[in-house]
Amino acid sequence: MPDDFERMWADLAPVGRSATSGGYNRSPFTAPETELRAWFVEQCRARGLRVEGDSYGNVVGWWDVGAGPAVLTGSHLDSVLDGGAYDGPLGVVSGLAALDLLRSRGVAPARPIGVSVFVEEEGSRFGLACLGSRLATGAVSWDQARELRDRDGVAFGDVVAGGASSSLLSSVGTFVELHVEQGRDLVDRGAAVGVASEIWPHGRYRFDFAGSANHAGTTRMEDRADPMLTYAFTALGANKQARLAGERATFGRVSVEPNGTNAVPSHVTAWLDARCATEESLAALVEGITTQATDRAGRDGTALVVTVESVSPAVAFDAALAARVAADHEGGDWPVIPTQAGHDAGILSAAGIPTAMLFVRNPTGVSHSPAEHAELPDCLVGVSALADTLERLTR
Amino acid sequence: MPDDFERMWADLAPVGRSATSGGYNRSPFTAPETELRAWFVEQCRARGLRVEGDSYGNVVGWWDVGAGPAVLTGSHLDSVLDGGAYDGPLGVVSGLAALDLLRSRGVAPARPIGVSVFVEEEGSRFGLACLGSRLATGAVSWDQARELRDRDGVAFGDVVAGGASSSLLSSVGTFVELHVEQGRDLVDRGAAVGVASEIWPHGRYRFDFAGSANHAGTTRMEDRADPMLTYAFTALGANKQARLAGERATFGRVSVEPNGTNAVPSHVTAWLDARCATEESLAALVEGITTQATDRAGRDGTALVVTVESVSPAVAFDAALAARVAADHEGGDWPVIPTQAGHDAGILSAAGIPTAMLFVRNPTGVSHSPAEHAELPDCLVGVSALADTLERLTR
Repeated sequence: MPDDFERMWADLAPVGRSATSGGYNRSPFTAPETELRAWFVEQCRARGLRVEGDSYGNVVGWWDVGAGPAVLTGSHLDSVLDGGAYDGPLGVVSGLAALDLLRSRGVAPARPIGVSVFVEEEGSRFGLACLGSRLATGAVSWDQARELRDRDGVAFGDVVAGGASSSLLSSVGTFVELHVEQGRDLVDRGAAVGVASEIWPHGRYRFDFAGSANHAGTTRMEDRADPMLTYAFTALGANKQARLAGERATFGRVSVEPNGTNAVPSHVTAWLDARCATEESLAALVEGITTQATDRAGRDGTALVVTVESVSPAVAFDAALAARVAADHEGGDWPVIPTQAGHDAGILSAAGIPTAMLFVRNPTGVSHSPAEHAELPDCLVGVSALADTLERLTR
Repeated sequence: MPDDFERMWADLAPVGRSATSGGYNRSPFTAPETELRAWFVEQCRARGLRVEGDSYGNVVGWWDVGAGPAVLTGSHLDSVLDGGAYDGPLGVVSGLAALDLLRSRGVAPARPIGVSVFVEEEGSRFGLACLGSRLATGAVSWDQARELRDRDGVAFGDVVAGGASSSLLSSVGTFVELHVEQGRDLVDRGAAVGVASEIWPHGRYRFDFAGSANHAGTTRMEDRADPMLTYAFTALGANKQARLAGERATFGRVSVEPNGTNAVPSHVTAWLDARCATEESLAALVEGITTQATDRAGRDGTALVVTVESVSPAVAFDAALAARVAADHEGGDWPVIPTQAGHDAGILSAAGIPTAMLFVRNPTGVSHSPAEHAELPDCLVGVSALADTLERLTR
């Protein structure tokens, strides 16, 4: 008898958890994340699933039943730095639990079902979100990926074997990802689960502000070229532009050189995360922020270089599939809602695989934070909804 | 024959130098700084000086001549992160070279002369500037100092023996510190050397901004409590307040939690370095910055705690001593000028030891930066000026 949802959830709870913040640090290929993937493989084996991995660290547990194109579900096990418990693991654990539920219902699927774990979904270590699913779909090549480096200079190519192209998705006809909602849409609608309509386009942009290091005591304010000022002005301006337009612009990561209390910095590097409803408005927002920053750099005597680290175009999930997943349930149709968060589902959808997403209600909407949460009854509704969906799609 | 100034300077040039920036990283008790102190002891021994150390890492090389209260000269060998070559080492090397010059002139001092090295003058590792001279004078107790921690959590008490109170200064009647100027006052006056009149009061203040971590994509701008915004506003406000008043306020060091591109931060910690002409104006400046920051925190839904890490009161150097050092030279009196930079000389002066400082011209005024510089001819004028001063004070 494999572990049920609550038991699996309890197994994962301590892995990578900070005793001080209560948040999770499950960066790809660190001890906690490696332990989680080992746990996943063990759970697959306990269910008699065939475990298939690729050279990038992605893993699928296959229930080899029926014939024809498979239905894949799953998510990721890595977290942002000091993140929550649900973002990622909820989809993986729910996938295993939904499979158990199908079996307990005596369902005999007409097609194979897989439960997947994609690596580095958050991009918290190597800087490119959805790295595993991008490699699995060919959206990113090995030659591009192997040179991505973490904050300590370790290359992605140093931590995975790589090279061999992935065939994990070759038999997949449909992908379904269950995920905790990262907003309050379902709360406002009073629904425990919902279905995704689209993902906003979004991107990451590195802002390198260069000035002149100098003594913080003796250098007159008017003689400085202080990149901290240009950065600070840019962060405030980005926030204001996004707020007025109902968009998102965040500077959540900063690195300062030399970062000494009594030295005017020589360099400030800051990363912009920007998201908008359309690709045009995203381009306009980033251009507006860059223009304001460049103007200020001119006044501060500093220099700015903006580097696009990644841009994810808008994803419109398969509308017919979303309707099929959402319709005709006891208690009415599930709501179909957009999201501003990137997901592996967006990568698979962009690669031409018909894809759906299920969201589970998040009572506070808080995510990427130790406070991220979903109530157990809602999680169990999510498992049941995922089982229903897999059953529909494998008839 | 001991090494001369140029040879000593060349010896030090590669130690702790970054191949990429050309700046120096000579944090206390790291390999480069330990090497520098070993070099200093070797230089003292080559001159037949008696080497005396204390349990905190401070060292003096004594020329045991004459009788009565000693005249001490010297500075420090540690640097800020990615700092310059001159801030500190110029005073130590010039002290040794001045002693050589006195001997070559056949001077027989009537009092002992010492050359000193004080540890952690910059506070770049344990956060408290002039730590070595504060311990040597008793301005800071061992119980306070032993618990100071570096960025990796290592305590000062873990890297020095400590405990035994220092008797290095017990015989010192006068202290003279030679230092590269950290501004352009001597350039404007066309003078190679000058004498310090006073040090502005200055302090370090830790600003802890607390907000709520959240997802950078899904959290609406108006639903955030983003401490980065409060910090950015505070950094700009501090700059403006100091600029308008002809004072100094710098945020050069920042630490962000969790510091992830796609997460609204939970915490931003930033350090303010503030300096003003009087203690009253310093208190008013810090209060003004804190008030503005607190107002903004209220609007951002964040919280601010300000912690005073250190405050150094104004230092007025012994005016009669400064006049005695500055007067009656070939080519006229040396200019007597104030400085905004803290120095060990300020600590010894505050401890009641009559103290003078000599500055050597800095053609750009740049300091705490790889670009910090003094021309060799000016350095040699500095050595000669220091020798003249020691000769006057030991007659």
